Formats: sequence, C-alpha cells, structure tokens
Amino acid sequence: MSDFKFYVPVTVQYGDIDAQWHVNHTRFIAYMEHARFEYYKRLGLFDGKSFLDLRGIIADVHVSYLGPIVLGQEIRVGTRTARIGTKSITFDYVIEDVKTGRALARAEIVVVAYDYRTQKSVPVPEDWRSIISEFEGRDFSNS
Amino acid sequence: MSDFKFYVPVTVQYGDIDAQWHVNHTRFIAYMEHARFEYYKRLGLFDGKSFLDLRGIIADVHVSYLGPIVLGQEIRVGTRTARIGTKSITFDYVIEDVKTGRALARAEIVVVAYDYRTQKSVPVPEDWRSIISEFEGRDFSNS
Amino acid sequence: MSDFKFYVPVTVQYGDIDAQWHVNHTRFIAYMEHARFEYYKRLGLFDGKSFLDLRGIIADVHVSYLGPIVLGQEIRVGTRTARIGTKSITFDYVIEDVKTGRALARAEIVVVAYDYRTQKSVPVPEDWRSIISEFEGRDFSNS
Amino acid sequence: MSDFKFYVPVTVQYGDIDAQWHVNHTRFIAYMEHARFEYYKRLGLFDGKSFLDLRGIIADVHVSYLGPIVLGQEIRVGTRTARIGTKSITFDYVIEDVKTGRALARAEIVVVAYDYRTQKSVPVPEDWRSIISEFEGRDFSNS
Repeated sequence: MSDFKFYVPVTVQYGDIDAQWHVNHTRFIAYMEHARFEYYKRLGLFDGKSFLDLRGIIADVHVSYLGPIVLGQEIRVGTRTARIGTKSITFDYVIEDVKTGRALARAEIVVVAYDYRTQKSVPVPEDWRSIISEFEGRDFSNS
Repeated sequence: MSDFKFYVPVTVQYGDIDAQWHVNHTRFIAYMEHARFEYYKRLGLFDGKSFLDLRGIIADVHVSYLGPIVLGQEIRVGTRTARIGTKSITFDYVIEDVKTGRALARAEIVVVAYDYRTQKSVPVPEDWRSIISEFEGRDFSNS
Repeated sequence: MSDFKFYVPVTVQYGDIDAQWHVNHTRFIAYMEHARFEYYKRLGLFDGKSFLDLRGIIADVHVSYLGPIVLGQEIRVGTRTARIGTKSITFDYVIEDVKTGRALARAEIVVVAYDYRTQKSVPVPEDWRSIISEFEGRDFSNS
Repeated sequence: MSDFKFYVPVTVQYGDIDAQWHVNHTRFIAYMEHARFEYYKRLGLFDGKSFLDLRGIIADVHVSYLGPIVLGQEIRVGTRTARIGTKSITFDYVIEDVKTGRALARAEIVVVAYDYRTQKSVPVPEDWRSIISEFEGRDFSNS
C-alpha cells in the first residue's frame, strides 16, 4: 500500500527485546539506521568503510510507534528520501510486518550534510541530488 | 537556566560511541529511557522489578540533536512531565553538558498508559496524576 | 571444513561497528546469542515468547577473536552442542566469513539449566537430551 | 577482600536488562570495556579521542558469571593488569555488588598491542610497561 521503493529485511534478535518482552523502542531507530546505510550503499553514496567520509549527521528523529515487534516476527524497513534542502536531507521510514503489511512504526529523520574532517555542516553534495532523484524517480534538484 | 527539577548524570561509555566517534543518536534516547526510569523510581511509580507491572509503552519519540557528545564529556539528562492526557503522558527531556550547561539534545516522548498483562492501553492511573502534580509543582489533574 | 550442522547468517549493522571501525567484541557474543535462540527454535526447545519458561542461564563465556569483522562483510554463526552435563550444556560457536570460510571467532559458552520462576538451577531436561542427540547425531544421554 | 587497586562504579540502565529481567551477559562485558577505558584514562594511556591511536585489540575474553545483576543494584567493576607479554596484555576483572562485596562475575581479557593505522600487531609499548608497573606496584618489565 505504500510507495517505498527500497526495503531492507531485518531479523529481530533476542538482544533487541527488552524487559517488556518486545523490541525496545531505541532498536526501531537502530533498524532504520541500518536501512539508511543499506540505502546509501545501494545508491553508491557511502562505501561502508571510510567513516570520516560519511557526509551526514543526525539532526532530528521523529518516530511514531504503531505496534509492538516481538521475537520471531518478520519485519522490513522501508526508506525513501522525502526532501532535500540546502543543507539537509529528510528521510521517511516505515517498519512493516512482512506477512500482514501492517505498519509498526513510521518515522521522519533529518540528516544534515556534514564534513566529519572539518566538523562543519556543508551543502548537500550535488551528486547526491542527482543520484537520489534518479533512484526515487522524483526531482530533488536545488531549485 | 532551565526549569527541570529532575536531573540524572550519565556516564558516557566507550560502547556508546559509534564509527563517527561521537555518541550514537540511538544512545541519546537510551539515556533518556534511563532518566525516565530514575524519575519513576524517585516518584515511587515503578519499583524496577516487576516489569509486567510497568504502566507505560512508548508511542512517540521526537528528538532534536543540538550537538555531539564525546567520550569523557560530563552530561546530565533533565526529565519533566509536560502533559498528562486521558491515556498518555508527555515527557520533556534535555541532555546538557554539565560544565557549560549547553543543551546537546531536546526531546518530547509520549508514553501511553498500558497494561502489559492484558496488552491494552488503560487510563493514566489517578495516583500518577497526584504524585506527578506534587513533584512537579503543577496541576496535572484530569480536568 | 567444519562439522557444524547449524548455521545462522547474520547481517552486520552500522550500530555493531565501534569507534575502532570494526564490529565491537561484545557484538560477536550477541551474534552467538542470536544463533543460540535460532538453534533453540529450530529444535523446538523454546518458542521465543514465554521468556520465564526459557530453561537456561549463561554461566561461562570464552571467546577467541581470530579476525575483525567489518560493515558489509557476509558472516554466519555456527552453533553446536559440545557437552551436556547434569546441570549444564556447553555450546561451541564459530563465526565465519561466508565467502572465504575463514573463522573470525571461536567460542565455548556454558548454559546452566535454570528455572526463572523459582530462580534456581535445575537438571537438564531429559527431552532436551534426546532432541539434541537426534539433531546432532551424537549420544548426549545422561550416562 | 580483593586486591584490585582500580574500581569504576557502573549504573545499571533499563536498556541493560534483557527479556530474562537481569542484566544481559553481553552487557557485563561492556561494563568491563568501560572500566578498561577508564583505566587507560587514569593511567594516561589513551586520551579518549584519537581512536586510531588506541593501541589494543581484543584477542580473548573469558567470563565466569557468578550471579545475576538487576536494575537498581549498585555495582562496581575492578580492573587490574595480570600479565604483560611481548605482544599482549592480560587484564583481570571483577564485577562486585557494592553493598555486599559479592563477586557477580570474574573475567580475564587479553588485549593484543595493535596499530590501527597499519592494521598490524605491534610490541607492547615500553612506556605502558613502566606506567602500569608503577600503578599496579608490580614489575611488568620485559624480562
């Protein structure tokens, strides 16, 4: 029912379960972080190795929790670019139950373009705009 | 400078640091979770033992990241009740650098009153309203 | 090259990487914990739900780290039962690079049979012996 | 009752508790990792910042779990150098209940001297031997 082009399956591990016997709410966000890195990798935006060359830092996280996740549940994380500003990218996320398609969480996460070597924010790289526009099938050019 | 009555010191651990050499953004939220449990304990709302008797489940997390946290930095987490609705409590958080007082993150987290035994949401317990009102010095009665 | 009958693939996540840019050594053990629960599930020893009915508690962990694991590396965790004593089970683990077959860690983990409701150690359940003996193709009967 | 000269208090956090309602066994090892970095800092062996200049990589972890740790329990981690070889240092750890002094875990962890820039093991730095010898009040010179 959703319009995400990119999904990553996530295996729930025992260590993700907290004392309330469901996946801890911080782990939902770790799942999204994992999905974001897979998205970067798929689009060729980060090689997974030279971490100081990673061009983003988290500025804002807003998660709505819609249902618990339990051990053994099959889930997947959808990721898409929602907006690209001058200095930041906003990603949308959904965590879904694979069998029912039910949304278990939705989130919006803002990543500010950042140079870890100089420790300063930078403009969103132009090639990111074109690569993301092509992948998402939407125009994210700096207008 | 802030009006939080309750602060918890947090020691940054090596394991909180991610590949970007600062505290991972999910750990900020874990620090707030820790502060929330200390707040519950201080107010006598949870004994830290019978987890199925814990009366809340996370519904919404919104964090603004204002500055990085590094290993060795002295920080503290401020917690306060912002609103009590019929079925949920909204908590405000700040993470501050102890030496400078600078805010490193601010957050609003909504906890829905929940019965883990029946797995259903429930009204916010009346005694929580009175206990929190007394502690915070504000009227959170159900009006 | 090894004689493990049971392997679980594990996806390395960004959050598993520490400030040294490889998978943190505690995460190796979390991968093994995940593999142990998958092993329990496969053999029908635990349903993944009623955690107070889980029949084991960790008594001893000994891990030899043979090589680093990095983001994007394909790995799998091998699990097998090594010994079953009167009150404990010893599991062997290997973490392997899927492409090269190289062992990245080996471990021996002792789990004591335990009743979480009474919080006491108990004898290893007889049905565990027969189920594990059948799966592993070795005789673990109490002799 | 023990002969550790260096202890670090650790605050148990909700997130350390697993589905079995005690501190997860991997968190014990994270507590020891935290204690090791505090030990390094105290002895001036690592500044907590330039992670590529950290001179050690984990080679072997052996933990005996002696008792559960629960939320709210006051604990501390004792760290000491047990041996310094040509290429590695062996540390001893104890996790104790602060009120009773009871040992909840004991561990031996081997750290190999390592250069993260060249990704090769190196001899244990001579100044580490002298600094550790002085702190521990034992002769760890390379004999």
